[in-house]
Amino acid sequence: MRMYDIIKRKRDGLELTPQEINYFVSGYVAGTIPDYQASALAMAIFFKGMTPREISWLTWEMACSGEMMDLSSLPGIKVDKHSTGGVGDKTTLAVAPIVASTGVPVAKMSGRGLGHTGGTLDKLESIPGFSVEIEHDRFLDIVRNVGVAVVGQTANLVPADKKLYALRDVTATVDSIPLIASSIMSKKIAAGADCILLDVKCGSGAFMKTFDDAEALARAMVDIGEKVHRTTVALITNMDQPLGNAIGNSLEVREAIDVLKGCAPEDITETCLELAANMLFLAHKGTLISCRGLARRQVESGAALKKFRQMVSAQGGDERVADDYSVFEQARCTRELLAPVSGWVKSMDAERCGLASAALGAGRATKDDAVDLTAGIILNRKVGDRVTKGDVLATLYSSSEEKLDDGERRLLSAFDIGGNRPVRTPHFLARVTTEGVERF
Amino acid sequence: MRMYDIIKRKRDGLELTPQEINYFVSGYVAGTIPDYQASALAMAIFFKGMTPREISWLTWEMACSGEMMDLSSLPGIKVDKHSTGGVGDKTTLAVAPIVASTGVPVAKMSGRGLGHTGGTLDKLESIPGFSVEIEHDRFLDIVRNVGVAVVGQTANLVPADKKLYALRDVTATVDSIPLIASSIMSKKIAAGADCILLDVKCGSGAFMKTFDDAEALARAMVDIGEKVHRTTVALITNMDQPLGNAIGNSLEVREAIDVLKGCAPEDITETCLELAANMLFLAHKGTLISCRGLARRQVESGAALKKFRQMVSAQGGDERVADDYSVFEQARCTRELLAPVSGWVKSMDAERCGLASAALGAGRATKDDAVDLTAGIILNRKVGDRVTKGDVLATLYSSSEEKLDDGERRLLSAFDIGGNRPVRTPHFLARVTTEGVERF
Repeated sequence: MRMYDIIKRKRDGLELTPQEINYFVSGYVAGTIPDYQASALAMAIFFKGMTPREISWLTWEMACSGEMMDLSSLPGIKVDKHSTGGVGDKTTLAVAPIVASTGVPVAKMSGRGLGHTGGTLDKLESIPGFSVEIEHDRFLDIVRNVGVAVVGQTANLVPADKKLYALRDVTATVDSIPLIASSIMSKKIAAGADCILLDVKCGSGAFMKTFDDAEALARAMVDIGEKVHRTTVALITNMDQPLGNAIGNSLEVREAIDVLKGCAPEDITETCLELAANMLFLAHKGTLISCRGLARRQVESGAALKKFRQMVSAQGGDERVADDYSVFEQARCTRELLAPVSGWVKSMDAERCGLASAALGAGRATKDDAVDLTAGIILNRKVGDRVTKGDVLATLYSSSEEKLDDGERRLLSAFDIGGNRPVRTPHFLARVTTEGVERF
Repeated sequence: MRMYDIIKRKRDGLELTPQEINYFVSGYVAGTIPDYQASALAMAIFFKGMTPREISWLTWEMACSGEMMDLSSLPGIKVDKHSTGGVGDKTTLAVAPIVASTGVPVAKMSGRGLGHTGGTLDKLESIPGFSVEIEHDRFLDIVRNVGVAVVGQTANLVPADKKLYALRDVTATVDSIPLIASSIMSKKIAAGADCILLDVKCGSGAFMKTFDDAEALARAMVDIGEKVHRTTVALITNMDQPLGNAIGNSLEVREAIDVLKGCAPEDITETCLELAANMLFLAHKGTLISCRGLARRQVESGAALKKFRQMVSAQGGDERVADDYSVFEQARCTRELLAPVSGWVKSMDAERCGLASAALGAGRATKDDAVDLTAGIILNRKVGDRVTKGDVLATLYSSSEEKLDDGERRLLSAFDIGGNRPVRTPHFLARVTTEGVERF
């Protein structure tokens, strides 16, 4: 078998065989297939796509390219959750304790933020003392005893994806649905869960800008799940504006705690409850309707907040953050962004909001940048709100006046304020299962 | 400027700017742009093509990436000739002396054979003593004094093409018309000629299998020539069967000498005369019709053969080869391939004939292989000929019986002998100039 022929067959629109995909993935990880052949193949896949079978073969080969987590020692059905990434997306922080509080174990590996989106690990590290670098046996112990743990990915998980993603990132081959779907699903499969809930973001702040693209990605991933025997459900949720009001690490943890207290904004609250209900459904805790009720009751009863405290404490964090937000380190400087005109907030560019937050210090431009865990934005007005000139649109948090200047300018450009009251878009757009697509 | 954006713009079907193409070519030659980005770009070009302007910018940047030959010290209009490569294509050996014998200087750099096609340099080296490695000043001296010289390409000619071609060869991005056209034309431009005559082969033994592809390549190259002010004409010629009867290095030189003596097969004779006439036309020696007469007279008068003798002698070769073919080294073994059935030769696969010759020792599988200059094939029957079972179809020349076995088997598979008399295809299919395409 020759890599040349594999590239040529894909270039000519033929379906690769499982043997060819295995040859490529194993050879690429071993270093016998050079980057220049892998990037040519990635570009050919960009143009010619892959069949559902090819995507599942690629996913499986990548998942098997390194360590595979074994969660079988944990009782019950293990459900993992993945979000394709958005601005203000702190759902894991609330959803994990809600689900765990019902007795369903949550053993979650998360990532860090890059570009305009944040990462769960960075957010958790804003809790004083909280550690996300926990070795495997201890991680399973915490899940066994507390019911939930959220940690960083082990170094040797899916090396094929690490290497291929880094290459795609510099060869303009990232935005290919077969490659995105296999990248995400290979990590979820290697992470060892039985079932997978996907939150596919759609809109200006998301990787998938249109519903059609989001649906295609969701379908591809649900299909992979079916083919590799990991029941997978995808929700397509709106990311035309930030989710909730908080953007930035400690600010988002506070809002997630507000979700658990029942006092968070409606969009983030409903999103967290729906995600939790779907995870409970996948864990066989009842019908979707009864799981929605269950999730809501875990919040109302305080059980979810209690589970959050236990999780924080078990990972070395200061659990007082749940009751006293002054336990978080505070930003040195703040500034209010005032409305320059009166009118309605007609739209908000979520990506610009994320980049404004990153400019304030909350994000990374490259993987090696440090993050200011106190920096970020609290939005006072969102799409559909009426504003009067001089109203506070948002409060900005940062470590210097210069960064506030930069962040303020960027955030202002994200707001579109005009004369007509806009139609509010729904939070949930669709639910995709092996049965098909149910639009909301 | 970032290579990433250049790849992405081409991937998205946009036209690259001259600055972007310069950035790519100079960065790739300098090694600051890695192979994996270049191969991704090549694959994007494979799918999205290039505009005529882009192709000419790419060609020019590649031509300028290394040494540019300066032929301005030679008098008159310098015309170069290039064949896209076929089986039995020994035209340069006859055309160069025909043209030079009229006083038009021919300063030609040629290549070596690879795969199923031969190379002019290998063929010339079958003449005892003939040297193709001649340094630049001496090369120009010979052209100035004798009127013609054929030498190897200097090491630093078009390094961008050398590097990019090697990469395309292993990433399934060779067969892209913009990349083929720019590769060929960059070398011709760097080689310093004022005008370029292209012989674009079309058929089973050629890189371009269909007339449409050959026409597209011819048009692209003529267009490049116009944009960089090198008048370029392309002939599209038939390569459905080998050209002439001889395949293999010394055997082809003998047939080229036969052309100069007026006793070669009709197809190779007419092809050489038409190519020579077009070169004379480009050198302003008259109308195309009068140049056809001029070329024919140079052969009939013996002037072309005399020029061939002078060329051989000037490059250290034994000029007696022109009169005594026993001066060539002779093959150790020969064998006749007999017709296994009676009928008409309906078709011949030129590529298989070339591979049979290579198997006999006349060709290279990789660049570092040695070539047996005595090996090859003399065809006794070609398409349209009647054969009786037991007739000699061809004579094979090699250094061992094992190679004769292999070559015989391969050559037999190239012949299709059947019941119906086939239609002979014409030698010349079209002539492409900036005025358009004239089909014959």
